[in-house]
Amino acid sequence: MTGTTAAAASIDIDHYMTALGRQARAAARETARAGTAQKNAALRAMADAIAAQRADIASANAQDLAAGRDKGLDAAMLDRLALTPARIDGMIEGLLQVAALEDPVGAISDLRYRPSGIQVGKMRVPLGVVGIIYESRPNVTCEAASLCLKSGNAVILRGGSEALHSNQALARCIGEGLRAAGITEHAVQVVATPDRAAVGRLITMPEYVDVIVPRGGKSLIERISADARVPVIKHLDGNCHVYIDDKADIDKALRIAFNAKTHRYGTCNTMETLLVAQGIAAQVLPALGEAYARAGVELRGCQRTRALLPDILEAVELDWLTEYLAPILAIKVVDDMNEAIAHIARYSSAHTEAIVTEDFSRAQRFLREVDSSSVMVNASTRFADGFEYGLGAEIGISTDKLHARGPVGLEGLTSQKYIVLGDGQIRE
Amino acid sequence: MTGTTAAAASIDIDHYMTALGRQARAAARETARAGTAQKNAALRAMADAIAAQRADIASANAQDLAAGRDKGLDAAMLDRLALTPARIDGMIEGLLQVAALEDPVGAISDLRYRPSGIQVGKMRVPLGVVGIIYESRPNVTCEAASLCLKSGNAVILRGGSEALHSNQALARCIGEGLRAAGITEHAVQVVATPDRAAVGRLITMPEYVDVIVPRGGKSLIERISADARVPVIKHLDGNCHVYIDDKADIDKALRIAFNAKTHRYGTCNTMETLLVAQGIAAQVLPALGEAYARAGVELRGCQRTRALLPDILEAVELDWLTEYLAPILAIKVVDDMNEAIAHIARYSSAHTEAIVTEDFSRAQRFLREVDSSSVMVNASTRFADGFEYGLGAEIGISTDKLHARGPVGLEGLTSQKYIVLGDGQIRE
Repeated sequence: MTGTTAAAASIDIDHYMTALGRQARAAARETARAGTAQKNAALRAMADAIAAQRADIASANAQDLAAGRDKGLDAAMLDRLALTPARIDGMIEGLLQVAALEDPVGAISDLRYRPSGIQVGKMRVPLGVVGIIYESRPNVTCEAASLCLKSGNAVILRGGSEALHSNQALARCIGEGLRAAGITEHAVQVVATPDRAAVGRLITMPEYVDVIVPRGGKSLIERISADARVPVIKHLDGNCHVYIDDKADIDKALRIAFNAKTHRYGTCNTMETLLVAQGIAAQVLPALGEAYARAGVELRGCQRTRALLPDILEAVELDWLTEYLAPILAIKVVDDMNEAIAHIARYSSAHTEAIVTEDFSRAQRFLREVDSSSVMVNASTRFADGFEYGLGAEIGISTDKLHARGPVGLEGLTSQKYIVLGDGQIRE
Repeated sequence: MTGTTAAAASIDIDHYMTALGRQARAAARETARAGTAQKNAALRAMADAIAAQRADIASANAQDLAAGRDKGLDAAMLDRLALTPARIDGMIEGLLQVAALEDPVGAISDLRYRPSGIQVGKMRVPLGVVGIIYESRPNVTCEAASLCLKSGNAVILRGGSEALHSNQALARCIGEGLRAAGITEHAVQVVATPDRAAVGRLITMPEYVDVIVPRGGKSLIERISADARVPVIKHLDGNCHVYIDDKADIDKALRIAFNAKTHRYGTCNTMETLLVAQGIAAQVLPALGEAYARAGVELRGCQRTRALLPDILEAVELDWLTEYLAPILAIKVVDDMNEAIAHIARYSSAHTEAIVTEDFSRAQRFLREVDSSSVMVNASTRFADGFEYGLGAEIGISTDKLHARGPVGLEGLTSQKYIVLGDGQIRE
């Protein structure tokens, strides 16, 4: 492609994305006003459309899978890309579940009389236009569209280029659902070009997009955060810790430490480093070492750990920083809770940390002093999840502090404005 | 200054600001842990120190005022810069008031059992390190320091260069207060150089600063927002509207429209455009025209307004966009509430808008559909204020949607993390 053609193409992408943005901004005024019943009708009609168009979706997906195999995508990527009948069922079920969730929009809280006679409270309102950038999983198209619509937002979805046909097939079903409920199709727009310039434009038009939610690997999220001119709800890595205190109940400690590592290896709320108090190490580490060995987990320990588990590798500095996302676990024996909290402050990604202890005051201090999006006492880190927390669904887990922290559900896609109800009051 | 010297100086500023940042980050761990009594003791000791050092503060301020007069600062700027005895009293009073406010840190809400047996709730936590950038008013030094400390944050304050000596004198009192309560002096650091490069560095070190709150004119805030690599709690302009509906109570309409404009002209919650429904214009505009004329307010109206108030100027497009901050008011007669809502959506800065009506359904619709940080029924826009809303104090009024919207008090300087309390639960 010559320089001139490249420039021309990029102007076209700008023009295209600007048009999507303008349409989304207009649609957002309509979705903000849409009633609960209307939004739910759209979600159910989307589910019906997907059920009716299974064959089209499957054939679009087959096209993407074939192209992916030709391009040499690896097995894991092809697996994420595949829309099996079970995953199509899952999308339908997901849409119906979001329809069943409580509508956050318009909820009024803390409405109180002030000495001046006015009543002041807060009303929950949509954020406006949400931009979602994601990688291979086409299921995200439905999940993200449904959460954004239910929370009264318009959304621009930009999936991976390898899922283009699948996403377009799903977009047609979503559009049908919106039309059936009398909501503008611009409420959910799926970017129809694989050109990467579309992402560059999407994250730099604050006049049309209020927030960006990237879903994908750390490098994608870091790249987007660095270039965005719009707030980003970031979900970086989950280097999660469990600390077994010397006042822990041994049975709970063994259960939690085993579950937090082995329940699933590839999730962000999986434990990556186990911290054990010196005073209890000899009581828990031999049993844990055996259990992990049986589960095929590779252990890497500090000196004191290796004194109890002599066969394991030595942990190096990098291990304390690593989110393995694999059957590997770093273990460190610490003097006490102070050292555990200091280790977490230094190495954690501030996602999720848990203490196992029966000591009330230590539990209170751990809850207060550990600065992570989820802090737990006597529970597995694997609980850090929108469904487990009762949010109904999640659009991501924020490791930021501003706006939303931890699992982000419908509420995280809304804001609160102040409302004032008076009877003619003026400032004196 | 030669290029080499300038580069050297700017390296020194970088080095200096990095040191402040590192110190603030370490201090933030301490302020986050500090108990309510300790923080309150520090605030009261700051008030004592200011009372004891009135003479020093006054003489530092006199030095700034003399330099300002030499530099030819205008009367308004010199007035903002002056620390009169009454203003010093105000600072002391303000510190004691913040000490009396409820401590937001550690508050737990929505703690509920989930089907898995875990309890999930949210705990309020400090943001970390706050950077405040402000202009001439040295009182802001105490206000901002007290709010940040009470909310458990460390703060780096960067006041205007014209207030450098005053701010340094106040910084000494603040430091004394912190020391007296056993809190590190790095909890509140006042930038001691007038070099503008300090601001550039402060807003681009996300590793040390979690959020920036600029306080000042629109151009300052726009400049900072454009360059910041850290989230900014923005307060842009307040182009506020009152809409008098044709179902309004005439008396309430006259009181509110008069108060919203004339109570104070220079504040961001002052009405700048009055919208009046066609059906009631003849009943309210002549009386309002007279009242505004008596108060010395210049009116600029649309065609239909001028049919009722023939002596006033014609409003042009720019008037609908302007935050006058002066005794000037734009008036537009609209067909109905739909046109009023559309006008607000197009021209408002999304700060504060009010409707005057006795119609329940219209009030409900206005509250829901107007997308501003404060939306009011039958009350003066002048109520949009942290004190009037019961926040106790405010660090600014956010016209952003993410994180904090409207008046930002102690809560706006905090975040919420999830906490999970279990009894050995694991994910099955």
